[in-house]
Amino acid sequence: IDKDYVKYFQSKNKLMPYTWGVIRIDGSHFHKFADVHNFEKPNDEQALKLMNECAVGVLDAFREFIFSYGVSDEYSFILKRSSHLQRTHASDIVSSVVSFFTSMYVMKWKAFFPLTDLVCQPSFDGRVVCYPSTDILRDYLSWRQVDCHINNQYNTCFWMLVKSGKSRSEAQQILKGTQSQEKMELLANNFGIDYNAIGEKLRLGSSAFWEEETGCSKIVVQHCNIIDGGFWEAHPYILA
Amino acid sequence: IDKDYVKYFQSKNKLMPYTWGVIRIDGSHFHKFADVHNFEKPNDEQALKLMNECAVGVLDAFREFIFSYGVSDEYSFILKRSSHLQRTHASDIVSSVVSFFTSMYVMKWKAFFPLTDLVCQPSFDGRVVCYPSTDILRDYLSWRQVDCHINNQYNTCFWMLVKSGKSRSEAQQILKGTQSQEKMELLANNFGIDYNAIGEKLRLGSSAFWEEETGCSKIVVQHCNIIDGGFWEAHPYILA
Amino acid sequence: IDKDYVKYFQSKNKLMPYTWGVIRIDGSHFHKFADVHNFEKPNDEQALKLMNECAVGVLDAFREFIFSYGVSDEYSFILKRSSHLQRTHASDIVSSVVSFFTSMYVMKWKAFFPLTDLVCQPSFDGRVVCYPSTDILRDYLSWRQVDCHINNQYNTCFWMLVKSGKSRSEAQQILKGTQSQEKMELLANNFGIDYNAIGEKLRLGSSAFWEEETGCSKIVVQHCNIIDGGFWEAHPYILA
Amino acid sequence: IDKDYVKYFQSKNKLMPYTWGVIRIDGSHFHKFADVHNFEKPNDEQALKLMNECAVGVLDAFREFIFSYGVSDEYSFILKRSSHLQRTHASDIVSSVVSFFTSMYVMKWKAFFPLTDLVCQPSFDGRVVCYPSTDILRDYLSWRQVDCHINNQYNTCFWMLVKSGKSRSEAQQILKGTQSQEKMELLANNFGIDYNAIGEKLRLGSSAFWEEETGCSKIVVQHCNIIDGGFWEAHPYILA
Ligand SMILES: Nc1nc2c(ncn2[C@H]2C[C@H](O)[C@@H](COP(=O)(O)OP(=O)(O)OP(=O)(O)O)O2)c(=O)[nH]1
Ligand SMILES: Nc1nc2c(ncn2[C@H]2C[C@H](O)[C@@H](COP(=O)(O)OP(=O)(O)OP(=O)(O)O)O2)c(=O)[nH]1
Ligand SMILES: Nc1nc2c(ncn2[C@H]2C[C@H](O)[C@@H](COP(=O)(O)OP(=O)(O)OP(=O)(O)O)O2)c(=O)[nH]1
Ligand SMILES: Nc1nc2c(ncn2[C@H]2C[C@H](O)[C@@H](COP(=O)(O)OP(=O)(O)OP(=O)(O)O)O2)c(=O)[nH]1
Ligand SMILES: O=P(O)(O)OP(=O)(O)OP(=O)(O)O
Ligand SMILES: O=P(O)(O)OP(=O)(O)OP(=O)(O)O
Ligand SMILES: O=P(O)(O)OP(=O)(O)OP(=O)(O)O
Ligand SMILES: O=P(O)(O)OP(=O)(O)OP(=O)(O)O
Ligand SMILES: [Mg+2]
Ligand SMILES: [Mg+2]
Ligand SMILES: [Mg+2]
Ligand SMILES: [Mg+2]
Ligand SMILES: [Mg+2]
Ligand SMILES: [Mg+2]
Ligand SMILES: [Mg+2]
Ligand SMILES: [Mg+2]
Ligand SMILES: [Mg+2]
Ligand SMILES: [Mg+2]
Ligand SMILES: [Mg+2]
Ligand SMILES: [Mg+2]
Repeated sequence: IDKDYVKYFQSKNKLMPYTWGVIRIDGSHFHKFADVHNFEKPNDEQALKLMNECAVGVLDAFREFIFSYGVSDEYSFILKRSSHLQRTHASDIVSSVVSFFTSMYVMKWKAFFPLTDLVCQPSFDGRVVCYPSTDILRDYLSWRQVDCHINNQYNTCFWMLVKSGKSRSEAQQILKGTQSQEKMELLANNFGIDYNAIGEKLRLGSSAFWEEETGCSKIVVQHCNIIDGGFWEAHPYILA
Repeated sequence: IDKDYVKYFQSKNKLMPYTWGVIRIDGSHFHKFADVHNFEKPNDEQALKLMNECAVGVLDAFREFIFSYGVSDEYSFILKRSSHLQRTHASDIVSSVVSFFTSMYVMKWKAFFPLTDLVCQPSFDGRVVCYPSTDILRDYLSWRQVDCHINNQYNTCFWMLVKSGKSRSEAQQILKGTQSQEKMELLANNFGIDYNAIGEKLRLGSSAFWEEETGCSKIVVQHCNIIDGGFWEAHPYILA
Repeated sequence: IDKDYVKYFQSKNKLMPYTWGVIRIDGSHFHKFADVHNFEKPNDEQALKLMNECAVGVLDAFREFIFSYGVSDEYSFILKRSSHLQRTHASDIVSSVVSFFTSMYVMKWKAFFPLTDLVCQPSFDGRVVCYPSTDILRDYLSWRQVDCHINNQYNTCFWMLVKSGKSRSEAQQILKGTQSQEKMELLANNFGIDYNAIGEKLRLGSSAFWEEETGCSKIVVQHCNIIDGGFWEAHPYILA
Repeated sequence: IDKDYVKYFQSKNKLMPYTWGVIRIDGSHFHKFADVHNFEKPNDEQALKLMNECAVGVLDAFREFIFSYGVSDEYSFILKRSSHLQRTHASDIVSSVVSFFTSMYVMKWKAFFPLTDLVCQPSFDGRVVCYPSTDILRDYLSWRQVDCHINNQYNTCFWMLVKSGKSRSEAQQILKGTQSQEKMELLANNFGIDYNAIGEKLRLGSSAFWEEETGCSKIVVQHCNIIDGGFWEAHPYILA
């Protein structure tokens, strides 16, 4: 009985060669996961550090990634452009990365949350998108970093309001329709907070990448502006 | 700066409606992983039980699966046919399942290997294939179960030969080209082993599925012949 | 200079094996094409015969089709299920069929419209869809035949009203929201037309297929009910 | 009876935005078609002119194409890069272009072959490939033009040998393994032919494109070197 004809049903969904492949993973139901494990609001430093640690692990294990950017419960990994003329299978790379990341997240949990047991299990979804040019890839990264900034500013305001005694729906009401500038003023005037002085990690998210130095290269995590050109000019080899 | 046009690059790879979707995950580099953690050869009972436990977890968390079959470092999960007229995204379901499974594998490790620390991390790849008919789905499952039997018989012989003092290459040489019947005789004559008496778990792999009983249904793990019709006749609701 | 690496950008979009592949072509801008060439309203017998002739040509040239159904400016061709374990490329089969059909349409034009010159050129779009089961394939064909009936009934009413002196927008207004039964009565009462007596070709569309007879098989065009089971029971070999 | 759920089986295979889409069509069985209609060997001027005429028709009708290149029985059409953020459906554009081209080929036949009746029908297959960068698109076009040159040089030698009395297999034998330079010499020494003096149409193939001039733009057909940079520098707006 030769049943292996069933293999032919597999469809080969390959990445387009010479494009920038981006794998983005995102925590499943992290709203609940953060709650259950008492993450600090709006940002839990240990949780972010754990995400970064796992991203570093991915970069170390999968040498075809040259840059990654993370914020909140998500991380984006950039495949080196030249790496896949031998068209990579989409489901292969996505599933391997998301599985590896998850595995590391659980294994390293205790190192970052020594006092908290995992009471429900973390998991992530993943997807891959190909971008045909470096400009568009940079627009993708800018999109994620702008998103980080917007969410973070909103969340900072929201939780300051809640901590100051407002109900959640009052806080929501107050923030509805406000512009970035107004939120800055709200923080400054009501809570004496200078938003720009808030840690870069929170405003800028985390970039994990291979830093090339004379003679060697190592993985670093930085909190830098990846929207403007400066970072990319200082690290021309990344998107070479 | 509105960069969210980058979303349009995502391609929607959906599963074909009214087909049987199968998600198969497979341990990455488990040859090494098994070695490093001293899995018994050829089959480590605790390792298989851990795999089954994770499969039960998947069935419990993702209610769209109605059957699953596992052997060695792999597991196949069958999506209920009627479940996806709203065509599911391939990468979504594959990545979520593989991540969930991995997460559980690490979290449950200690319960199954209390004396062994995880020294390197387990991870899995995943893929999805759609089968248009129940017959072809059953051929798929038969293909996996036949594979289980063939590998298991070979491995049993191989490791018995090695344990009896042959070198690995000698054992390989002896088994080269042998038929199933010859392997049975080798085991019987040289080692007094009746292959058919070997645990069903090993010969048949593991099926985890929802068992329907009067008034309730629960997930069970069984080691049954899923090639012949008997099992399916006894559980007509599974592939209904 | 070896530039043929550019071949690797081609993605292989193959049909799923063991499903029913349907290629549907549809005339581009036939509203205008029919006008320009003075097709009779609502149905031009010669135009329909020309469509059927081309469909017969496709069946004769591409032996992997076993049935086809046409109405108005469209035709659907059904690929024999067993014919494509060697997964056919989607764009290959679609483009070849649509090109062949178009070619024949132009070449045979004069035979059907001896007094009318082609003043603008006919062309067709094409697509392919795979259906996993015979039931769903039959639902597809029923969908097209119901569509034929609904459009035809509407158009018959519309053009009778217009020929009787109503403006186009008046006719549209009268028919707005009417049910099938009301349209039958409108035709009977106002114009003495018994819709059911209208030629089957118009009510039922055209089916072109291989008719198997003792010792030989030949392509025929019939106007039959393909929604009910009768036709399929009388021709069991078609969807075998 | 609502059967239109069958529409959901259609999968949307869209072109990647901001890439260069290339539709290539190629005559089906033109070896036989050329024979049957007594095309001159190796190149039939009227046949090439007819192909060009049809390409001009495509450019005129589908304004999203900005360049096209043809040789032998094939033609490649380049989609303007900015034209498809609204991701075009692959089968739609391929089928429409191949159908339009075919239609025109048949309609214009008599104008180019007034003494030859179409005894069998021409048809074409079609496919679409997306290229992520202008460099790769130019490599694609170079690949086709190099192919044109190689085939043309070979065919020129082959048919000169055959016309001079060699059998086809002798001619094949003589040319086996020869380099471009040797073929030039064979033509020069045996037949007094200077290959470089052979019409550019034959050596370079045909480029049909929109020529922009002060105040207006029109479609032209030229036989130019599209491998080197000169042409593209003189027409910077084409790949802008
Ligand atoms: N308190 C707290 N919550 C966080 C932190 N980082 C992420 N989260 C939570 C807040 C957000 O609700 C959630 C991320 O938003 P998502 O849009 O990914 O939603 P969620 O993961 O709940 O659902 P999903 O399964 O992704 O659709 O994770 C943190 O540092 N502290
Ligand atoms: N000793 C031992 N090894 C096992 C057991 N279950 C699985 N393995 C190992 C033996 C096989 O080499 C390996 C499974 O074969 P695969 O073809 O999946 O290879 P592997 O995972 O090494 O590579 P891959 O990343 O899947 O290509 O896992 C077990 O119970 N005991
Ligand atoms: N007078 C007349 N018109 C017909 C006949 N058969 C088809 N047509 C016309 C009427 C319809 O407007 C048109 C078919 O409808 P479609 O939905 O395919 O529209 P059309 O081809 O105009 O646009 P498309 O390019 O397919 O989106 O063809 C006929 O026998 N007589
Ligand atoms: N005599 C002659 N033959 C030509 C001319 N242009 C094209 N052909 C013929 C010669 C080639 O055999 C054929 C084109 O080669 P293809 O590789 O496209 O092969 P063909 O179309 O026969 O098969 P296909 O259906 O494309 O796989 O067309 C011409 O100008 N004169
Ligand atoms: O889940 P979100 O809200 O971050 O956004 P998304 O994942 O891009 O959306 P979807 O889950 O619907 O793909
Ligand atoms: O990895 P194997 O050997 O079990 O087989 P496979 O995973 O189906 O093969 P591949 O990894 O090449 O898809
Ligand atoms: O063109 P229609 O109206 O017959 O319907 P369709 O072709 O299925 O719709 P679309 O052209 O939008 O795919
Ligand atoms: O048909 P050929 O030889 O010009 O080459 P191709 O069309 O690229 O090859 P295939 O028909 O196999 O896709
Ligand atoms: Mg999401
Ligand atoms: Mg999330
Ligand atoms: Mg998120
Ligand atoms: Mg594998
Ligand atoms: Mg494995
Ligand atoms: Mg395996
Ligand atoms: Mg349409
Ligand atoms: Mg139409
Ligand atoms: Mg139509
Ligand atoms: Mg070809
Ligand atoms: Mg050809
Ligand atoms: Mg060709």
